[in-house]
Amino acid sequence: MAAMAMSSLLLHPNSGHHKRPIYKITKLPSRKPFSCKSSLLNPTKIQDQNYKLSWINEIQEAYPSAAAGGEYSDEEFQELVDRRCVDNVRMLIVDSVQRAKAGHPGMALGMADVAYFLYRHVFRHNPMNPTWFNRDRFVLSAGHGCLLQYVCLHLAGFHSVKIEDLQRLCQLGSRTPGHPENTVTAGIEVTTGPLGQGVANAVGFALAEAHLAARFNKPDVAIVDHRTYCIMGDGCAMEGISNEAASLAAHWKLNKLTLIYDDNKNTIDGPTDLAFTEDVTLRFKALGWNTITVDATHSNMSSFKNALLDAFNETQRPTLIRVKTCIGKLSKKEGTSKAHHGIFDEEDEKQMKEKVKWGTRQPFYVIPMLHREMQVQAGRGEELEKEWHSKLNYYQSKYPQEAAEFKCLLYGGMIPGWENSLPKWSTSDAVDATRGYSEKCLNNLAKVLPGLIGGSADLASSNKVHLHDYQDFQNPVSPWGRNIRYGVREHAMAGISNGIALHGGGLIPFAATFLTFSDYMKNSIRLSALSHAGVIYIMTHDSIGLGEDGPTHQPVEHLVGLRAIPRLLVFRPADGNETAGAYRVAVANRGAPSVVALSRQKVAANLEGTSADGVERGGYIVSDNSLDDHLPEIILIGTGSELCLCEGSARVLRREGRRVRVVSLVCWRLFDRQGVEYKERVLPPGVTRRVSVEARSTIGWREYVGPEGVVVGVDEFGASGAYLDTFKKFGFTEENVTRIAKNLLSK
Amino acid sequence: MAAMAMSSLLLHPNSGHHKRPIYKITKLPSRKPFSCKSSLLNPTKIQDQNYKLSWINEIQEAYPSAAAGGEYSDEEFQELVDRRCVDNVRMLIVDSVQRAKAGHPGMALGMADVAYFLYRHVFRHNPMNPTWFNRDRFVLSAGHGCLLQYVCLHLAGFHSVKIEDLQRLCQLGSRTPGHPENTVTAGIEVTTGPLGQGVANAVGFALAEAHLAARFNKPDVAIVDHRTYCIMGDGCAMEGISNEAASLAAHWKLNKLTLIYDDNKNTIDGPTDLAFTEDVTLRFKALGWNTITVDATHSNMSSFKNALLDAFNETQRPTLIRVKTCIGKLSKKEGTSKAHHGIFDEEDEKQMKEKVKWGTRQPFYVIPMLHREMQVQAGRGEELEKEWHSKLNYYQSKYPQEAAEFKCLLYGGMIPGWENSLPKWSTSDAVDATRGYSEKCLNNLAKVLPGLIGGSADLASSNKVHLHDYQDFQNPVSPWGRNIRYGVREHAMAGISNGIALHGGGLIPFAATFLTFSDYMKNSIRLSALSHAGVIYIMTHDSIGLGEDGPTHQPVEHLVGLRAIPRLLVFRPADGNETAGAYRVAVANRGAPSVVALSRQKVAANLEGTSADGVERGGYIVSDNSLDDHLPEIILIGTGSELCLCEGSARVLRREGRRVRVVSLVCWRLFDRQGVEYKERVLPPGVTRRVSVEARSTIGWREYVGPEGVVVGVDEFGASGAYLDTFKKFGFTEENVTRIAKNLLSK
Repeated sequence: MAAMAMSSLLLHPNSGHHKRPIYKITKLPSRKPFSCKSSLLNPTKIQDQNYKLSWINEIQEAYPSAAAGGEYSDEEFQELVDRRCVDNVRMLIVDSVQRAKAGHPGMALGMADVAYFLYRHVFRHNPMNPTWFNRDRFVLSAGHGCLLQYVCLHLAGFHSVKIEDLQRLCQLGSRTPGHPENTVTAGIEVTTGPLGQGVANAVGFALAEAHLAARFNKPDVAIVDHRTYCIMGDGCAMEGISNEAASLAAHWKLNKLTLIYDDNKNTIDGPTDLAFTEDVTLRFKALGWNTITVDATHSNMSSFKNALLDAFNETQRPTLIRVKTCIGKLSKKEGTSKAHHGIFDEEDEKQMKEKVKWGTRQPFYVIPMLHREMQVQAGRGEELEKEWHSKLNYYQSKYPQEAAEFKCLLYGGMIPGWENSLPKWSTSDAVDATRGYSEKCLNNLAKVLPGLIGGSADLASSNKVHLHDYQDFQNPVSPWGRNIRYGVREHAMAGISNGIALHGGGLIPFAATFLTFSDYMKNSIRLSALSHAGVIYIMTHDSIGLGEDGPTHQPVEHLVGLRAIPRLLVFRPADGNETAGAYRVAVANRGAPSVVALSRQKVAANLEGTSADGVERGGYIVSDNSLDDHLPEIILIGTGSELCLCEGSARVLRREGRRVRVVSLVCWRLFDRQGVEYKERVLPPGVTRRVSVEARSTIGWREYVGPEGVVVGVDEFGASGAYLDTFKKFGFTEENVTRIAKNLLSK
Repeated sequence: MAAMAMSSLLLHPNSGHHKRPIYKITKLPSRKPFSCKSSLLNPTKIQDQNYKLSWINEIQEAYPSAAAGGEYSDEEFQELVDRRCVDNVRMLIVDSVQRAKAGHPGMALGMADVAYFLYRHVFRHNPMNPTWFNRDRFVLSAGHGCLLQYVCLHLAGFHSVKIEDLQRLCQLGSRTPGHPENTVTAGIEVTTGPLGQGVANAVGFALAEAHLAARFNKPDVAIVDHRTYCIMGDGCAMEGISNEAASLAAHWKLNKLTLIYDDNKNTIDGPTDLAFTEDVTLRFKALGWNTITVDATHSNMSSFKNALLDAFNETQRPTLIRVKTCIGKLSKKEGTSKAHHGIFDEEDEKQMKEKVKWGTRQPFYVIPMLHREMQVQAGRGEELEKEWHSKLNYYQSKYPQEAAEFKCLLYGGMIPGWENSLPKWSTSDAVDATRGYSEKCLNNLAKVLPGLIGGSADLASSNKVHLHDYQDFQNPVSPWGRNIRYGVREHAMAGISNGIALHGGGLIPFAATFLTFSDYMKNSIRLSALSHAGVIYIMTHDSIGLGEDGPTHQPVEHLVGLRAIPRLLVFRPADGNETAGAYRVAVANRGAPSVVALSRQKVAANLEGTSADGVERGGYIVSDNSLDDHLPEIILIGTGSELCLCEGSARVLRREGRRVRVVSLVCWRLFDRQGVEYKERVLPPGVTRRVSVEARSTIGWREYVGPEGVVVGVDEFGASGAYLDTFKKFGFTEENVTRIAKNLLSK
């Protein structure tokens, strides 16, 4: 193997200590209690008397009894303003649902107080720059409540949601789709809807923050310092993925993660106690969480505020704030599952507006002072971003090396020339399993991609994904570590990886398990693709070739299911150079996830004709003995460990005078994206004798072998047995491929 | 809709009360503490002095110090015998692994005491008849430990595992594959290996028992009365599915379920505290379980015995027995993750044999008295089965109606003629979504299939799977209910359904959610197919046609992934009669699972040419205007809601004088299984102009449309919007299909 010289690619070429990269020796600053609480404790004093007077008029009309006393303390005043703003939030929710004749108002109405409070008083973000790095992250795991988030984004001043967008809820092409999509609406951090996923995403955000803070913060300056908030519903709380992710969050002591549990006692099918009678708070305690319960059914946010302050003071545990709420608040359906989704009848709508003394205000009315009210927080956000930039300047002057690396990460983590670090193999190199080649690629990449971080669901040794020069990510012991130990939790691993990828800190997450267990994380992989999260899924033991572990562990149908996921790049490399090629494309594609499917067993050879460049085109000619003016008589198409079988058969056939082409179809999607001219050059329409060889379901191969070709695959479950016995049983031998080819040639 | 007369099909034609089937009014007998404990409390007194003497010799050689006293109480004697038997179990494990050069000895050695104790003293089963209905069920969720189970099955006298089978561990075609498979080895209840699944399966077994007991037991006779045991490892405990299932087990008060947690503090990648530091016991308490911790590291089973007695006394909660064990016990690798899998070096093997004073015994040696020792339990099993048959006879004479129904269930739950209960639709019937047709089918079937039971993961109202004449399964309130409320726990739902299907009590489980969330339960669906569990998966909202909920909820790639699972039958019916046809096949196929994919939106029509008989063949001609001697000029192939589009286009084209055939390809697998003659009749090779129309990934369609055909599908993510807008955006309109067809015809 021709190992590349690495030093020219390193960020700190003079540091020298490959074995001890600088982020290993960075001293971890103490994590101070969060400064955000100061703004919570001291409400802004309102100076503008006209503004105040407008509010007092509004409030006195809405709440005659509350206003009876006439004079308010600053705090009382703020509370009343908040309360009225929340009324407005609820009215916008009602108007949007009624206009759309679709949507999920139940959770949105129930959590309106909490969400408004967060957007008005808590979140440290900048609506003018939704992707400011050091913003607080917010994930709505109960994604069906997105209308609430759209309303808050609108009021908070995010340009992505205008009042017209609220009026186009769930309409084709709108920026307010039925579930929140980060690729559609700025201010949405991650696409949610499938329940429980958001909890894992939030854990990923918090992990990314803790990791980057440990690597870059200095005792005198913290450039990575933000919190992660997540709202989960009862559904999220029931899903296994949230338990997996929550267990890890506590294990990793992600104290800056706050999970807000919308405990509204209802799901679609009825009251939660139909199926959910466990003690959720105690479960989270058992997982290692700080837990607090508050009652928000009566719109008093003071206990919620105190809970947040408590969370801010935590230096070890993540915090669960269990908020008792009333689903569908205001509606006659409130407190019942009927409020979960669907529109309101006319009478209900009317009564809701009466309840908040909305008078004859038009639909989508916004109290004029409300925008200004929200600007307080938006202005604070701009201020915070400015402060952060000053800090960054200071950091840059004092810690230029680290600053360079940090900025590299912020711009995506790609150092020009990084791909040259990938090893190259020649035909004389000792053969290995493709998981072995992958190990070398990963370890080389880790040195030149400062953002590469990841791990396995308890199969690091089998998947061969350990980064040998780096420590484990274990907080607070070694949060700078880049090997993540997920335990046996595939689903959370993938959901967390999505969070890491979308955090915006330039981290490039990889997640590894056996290909067959892609099943456990299928929905998260789908969401990687949908939300443009460039997670690299490393899936070893990629066929019946894994042998003894038997059919439960032998993937058959998985590759085709993954290949069908839009945007996802699925690679099944055949040898060292193809494995390197797969990584080259996967790393470069930060906006799309990849699956790299790797063999457990050794492949037969490092082939002469394979190449990373070929992998980039998805399919290419590996070998061909046809003379210039002749087409081959037959094409053998293979992927992964079966490409060598094709080469072996080709050799036999060529010895018998046949013109044989071998094609690697390592990534269908990339090949499909090539122009017709290229595709027909690789698979000329005139050559109808084609054989595909891949040890998995045959579905989809007809596209490439044509009507007269033969598809060699596995359409039944595998079997426990030694690898060669299993391969033989299912026809994956050189002899069988040769026999089939000869048969075709004789026709 | 021509509703069928149902009464002739009912088991109790004279009972009359369709709205209140008899099992609704069956009085629930009190669930007495389990009688098995008596055998645990009073060890068998050994009468045969020669037999005893042989043991004493064996014991004195093995444990000189233990034997020093000379005389033992019956209890002490039994303990020493057990201990020596466990030594033998461990030696068989070592021998098997060494012979196979593969396998997972770690858990097998660590849990040898516990497993042996269960097989020797606890399980009430009959090795001579492994499928005796009223046996205790045992699930090894930590399936990689199967070697331990094989050894125990062998010693317990199950014919399925002979000593030769132990010698062929993990070899191709052996009855001792790398993970336990219920279809390969009698005595294995369910195929496990993917972690956590077994816990859900065990919950399914316990649910089936509680349900059947409630329906059939009488105050004077209990014909359904067995327990479910499950061993889970650390990996199982980490997986989300086990938390989901455990939450339900406690909610349902499945007191006869005992989960034994092999707490060995190690997983593949190292000590569990790398990633798993939660308080598992407290978590189970929070879920509502009775929890007990025992230490089994020193082979003293008395505390384990007491824990079991405690579990037997529970009348409400399922019990978790957390057993501290030592992974790889005896090996020099014991207590470390290195013992998890892999063989032993020569020195280690030698030392292990010395530790148990095995002398020069040959590999696979079994102490002669051991088989006889185990026969005590086997004999008790035969006795128990006999007793049960006497009970059944008594039951039959006293409760003939119920006995008839019970026996019907034991023989698979299929009453001849049940399929006639399926509704039939004519073209003049009002149109509905296929989920609506499905609702009618299910509700009709429930009346004639006493075993039909199931539910949804909190989408019963959306999936339309509520059985209106039946109560919820809620224990102890209404355990006879046939609607199961799974909460938002798709993965556990599928795993539990597998348990229900494989329980052997004739139950026919269905499990419902949105098609897109098949992702959450993919591995369990796979295991349904692998373990021949005839679960019916009802998956609605089957395409972008679901509209407003957007791409997170719109399946695109799912169908092809499911179609690729071996054995699984995937149906996408187009209208009422096809939906009925799908159920007819799905119900009849008790040895294979089915997916019935159904639309959220109304389909355009009940078509003239669709039929249940057609569905049975997977693909068939729906309409064709070609004259006898002519082939059609073009074939339009559709599934589900898009079949109507094909019909619509066909009408347009026919008006223009074209010969057009419409084919429904409702189930690929069934069509693929037809003979060539039939397939070519439906899709004549001579007709190369073909268009397939299916609102999902195009992968796989080339097989049916040929190289010149056009595949209309969706290879990107969907979009939130009104159904018709979304369909239009992606080209699913009559106009577009007609345009494409004309284009083809003009070539």
